[in-house]
Amino acid sequence: MKKIITISREFGSGGRELGMKLAIELGIPCYDHQIIEMVAQNESISKDYVAKMSEKDLRSFYSAKVGRSFVMLNPDMNKSMKIALAEHKIIKELASQGDCIIVGRASDVVLRDENPFNIFVYADNETKIKRCRKFLQKNEKMTDKEILSMCKKIDKERKAYHEMYSSIDWGHPDSYNLCVNTSNKSIDDIALGLASYINVWYK
Amino acid sequence: MKKIITISREFGSGGRELGMKLAIELGIPCYDHQIIEMVAQNESISKDYVAKMSEKDLRSFYSAKVGRSFVMLNPDMNKSMKIALAEHKIIKELASQGDCIIVGRASDVVLRDENPFNIFVYADNETKIKRCRKFLQKNEKMTDKEILSMCKKIDKERKAYHEMYSSIDWGHPDSYNLCVNTSNKSIDDIALGLASYINVWYK
Repeated sequence: MKKIITISREFGSGGRELGMKLAIELGIPCYDHQIIEMVAQNESISKDYVAKMSEKDLRSFYSAKVGRSFVMLNPDMNKSMKIALAEHKIIKELASQGDCIIVGRASDVVLRDENPFNIFVYADNETKIKRCRKFLQKNEKMTDKEILSMCKKIDKERKAYHEMYSSIDWGHPDSYNLCVNTSNKSIDDIALGLASYINVWYK
Repeated sequence: MKKIITISREFGSGGRELGMKLAIELGIPCYDHQIIEMVAQNESISKDYVAKMSEKDLRSFYSAKVGRSFVMLNPDMNKSMKIALAEHKIIKELASQGDCIIVGRASDVVLRDENPFNIFVYADNETKIKRCRKFLQKNEKMTDKEILSMCKKIDKERKAYHEMYSSIDWGHPDSYNLCVNTSNKSIDDIALGLASYINVWYK
């Protein structure tokens, strides 16, 4: 049985790092930013533009909501939707090739037919602040409150992006096989434990 | 480092069975119904009475809520609270003796000072219905709707019981180290995977 693992994650929880380390432990590829590069190449657009649009709340392109649908009034929407669909096409291709881990991009929904092992990674505020501080530029000053506000904003965008493609709740335990709290524990240790769990799952 | 593991679980998710099987895998004791027996013995009351009161929503004994507190008007409350406190005392004693797994009874809150590994076990409705049907008596007839309604009622009581002792949300991922979905997977396999995860956690 093919190991198709998806990782959804709160910003600042270490989900991306966990995906990469889990991939090393399992000896399978992990795709995250590489998807952006592939889309940029396939669609002949800049990596920066794809990255900017990736996992953004597509609803910001709409100006009205009618029932469960949004009414599109912004012509940029087409470009953004095109990028999302190109990402999803690549995610499906990657999963069809063999075992892999996909981080974000509603991959749990996109790969539903592959019966993936879906993980949600989260952490407490203290852990998020500490982790975000590690990645701040030296001259970049942010208060704890500003960091948490940024985390919340990005998570809100991720949730909204996810909900554009599915009625499945982003971040709700029901949507995942395992929800992993990374607070007060090294990502290395969690990756090791998770690899053992997944190896048993697919044995 | 002592392995103190607590299991909170949705009714019908297989959390109790998972606790027992995890205990076998880890080679440590798991306490669930034994706590009831210990309380009954210590307090010289019947096992049935302790079981009846265990994890019941103590708020049913109160008739008014003032702020975050409940105003006790029912004299039976003293007996029930006495049982809960006796359970918590035994849980603390068991944890002080060495590695163990405790199922339910707000043990994640009671053992907070021991820095336990807290697990929440949950499942989808289909899995709960299937599991509950296995335990129905031969002459006991229940529709799927009735089973789910019973599950919800018991979970509501568990949540309320938990909230009597803590502001920590029962069932919310933030309150646990790991949330485990048992849908469509054997409890044996999950116990095996979980044991590997926990062994790495405490290595």
